Amino acid sequence: MPANKHINKRINKLVVIGVGLIGGSFALALKKARIVKQVVGVGRSRKNLQVALRLGVIDKAETDAARAVVGADLVLIGAPVGQMPGIFARIAPALPKHAVVTDAGSTKQDVIAAARRHLGAHFAQFVPAHPIAGTEHSGAGAAFPELFRDRNLILLPQKETNAAAVRLVRAAWLACGARIVRLEAAEHDEIFGAVSHLPHVVAFALVNQLAQRRDAKRLLGFSGGGLRDTVRIAGSSPEMWRDICIANRAALVPLVDGFISELEAARAALAVGDGESLEHMFRTAQKARARWLLKRK
Amino acid sequence: MPANKHINKRINKLVVIGVGLIGGSFALALKKARIVKQVVGVGRSRKNLQVALRLGVIDKAETDAARAVVGADLVLIGAPVGQMPGIFARIAPALPKHAVVTDAGSTKQDVIAAARRHLGAHFAQFVPAHPIAGTEHSGAGAAFPELFRDRNLILLPQKETNAAAVRLVRAAWLACGARIVRLEAAEHDEIFGAVSHLPHVVAFALVNQLAQRRDAKRLLGFSGGGLRDTVRIAGSSPEMWRDICIANRAALVPLVDGFISELEAARAALAVGDGESLEHMFRTAQKARARWLLKRK
Repeated sequence: MPANKHINKRINKLVVIGVGLIGGSFALALKKARIVKQVVGVGRSRKNLQVALRLGVIDKAETDAARAVVGADLVLIGAPVGQMPGIFARIAPALPKHAVVTDAGSTKQDVIAAARRHLGAHFAQFVPAHPIAGTEHSGAGAAFPELFRDRNLILLPQKETNAAAVRLVRAAWLACGARIVRLEAAEHDEIFGAVSHLPHVVAFALVNQLAQRRDAKRLLGFSGGGLRDTVRIAGSSPEMWRDICIANRAALVPLVDGFISELEAARAALAVGDGESLEHMFRTAQKARARWLLKRK
Repeated sequence: MPANKHINKRINKLVVIGVGLIGGSFALALKKARIVKQVVGVGRSRKNLQVALRLGVIDKAETDAARAVVGADLVLIGAPVGQMPGIFARIAPALPKHAVVTDAGSTKQDVIAAARRHLGAHFAQFVPAHPIAGTEHSGAGAAFPELFRDRNLILLPQKETNAAAVRLVRAAWLACGARIVRLEAAEHDEIFGAVSHLPHVVAFALVNQLAQRRDAKRLLGFSGGGLRDTVRIAGSSPEMWRDICIANRAALVPLVDGFISELEAARAALAVGDGESLEHMFRTAQKARARWLLKRK
């Protein structure tokens, strides 16, 4: 098997803890790039692991993370961020010395703090990361190897992190087709609080408001493409997003407050029939979208 | 030219006032169905009318609505709802007795009241309507004949409306491929306030909040598909949406209030780290979306 241009040795054993959309797609991409020999998947749901086995996302299923990481070269934790402290604690005593650990958590300050707390000396082998990719679908069945192609991969090595560990994780993500971007953890959490976590809260809240009405079924039967796109991300995993929002609440609460203020300004303009202020708000938004969002993938 | 199955005589002169996405697509669909002979477009922007002429959306351009409607068989008003009272007043004295007038306004109580006020005896020839279709693009250049295929067309004939006028408008929209649905005006405005006008306010407000930040450019550079879809409709015409929101503000203000309450509940759960309440909200939304929105076009 030829080595990939990004990586000079193959990964004999990749362990993916949490074989969902992200973890599963990472495994499939590395298999497709032919730089991984065996993938062991760890998860809480036997059914999901069976789907992962059947689809060839993983080669072997395990329910115990500590047993799974024995002999591992690379461990990717793709579980909801709320589970990461428990996973770090569980795998720490079983990790081989050379094993590199990375994660795909959507929040970084909390994950890094948990790794520092639970991994001990092995923290130097931990490379925090966050792939900016996803769909509203969850589980191994939603995984596909092209998910990360041309997407940003945020890499957040810490001052203790071994350079060789960073190189391995970087090479693996490059082999997935991702673009590597470095950020500080606090900056990461603020940015993704604004462009990702807040929109998810907004989408969930909007569907919730409509769903609670007695006439919800009839009402939503009249909806068009506008509402459908606006709330697409309300199809995302409730557990995963609970964990993200709770983990990043220090950044998220002021963002929600800012958004409520924005809505209150619109409400005030509506209440008095102030079309000029309303149009100004709408035009500012329309222009900003055209300038900064329209041409992005 | 063969008559379309939905209509037993051709429309010799169709006048479209406001040759945008909706008015332009209506003209193109009726031309494609070969039930209209000549389309005269009326608009404020000479540039847009020239685009409409060049693309064959209209056969003749006019800037004066009163002059345009002379000899018309069918008049579609596709202008922003805030302009409709002025348009009704302007065309009323010039309309031929047999001419049928319809509109594509997103709000109905205000448009019907304006028509009743300004059309006089001709109000019986006015058939209020609202096609539930659109994209975030505006103008004649965005028009395409399939826009209304399999979409709902809300028809709202009043007690005074002539049956023959209703038949003509119904047949024209059927020829566009639309499904005809009848609603009362107040019910219409409440439903579309919830499933369309509120989501637009939300999308505009969300982009606005992010755009006002000093780091907006960098921030939005990190956004993914989630934010892009959530705010797609913030690309819609600010003027059109100003008019819709102002016209329907009686229904919209309580909806915005309800949405702010929903966000405040999420904010309260976040502030105290109450993951259980947050997950319950997210799960309710996720299920409602799967049940009522997922399979809709």
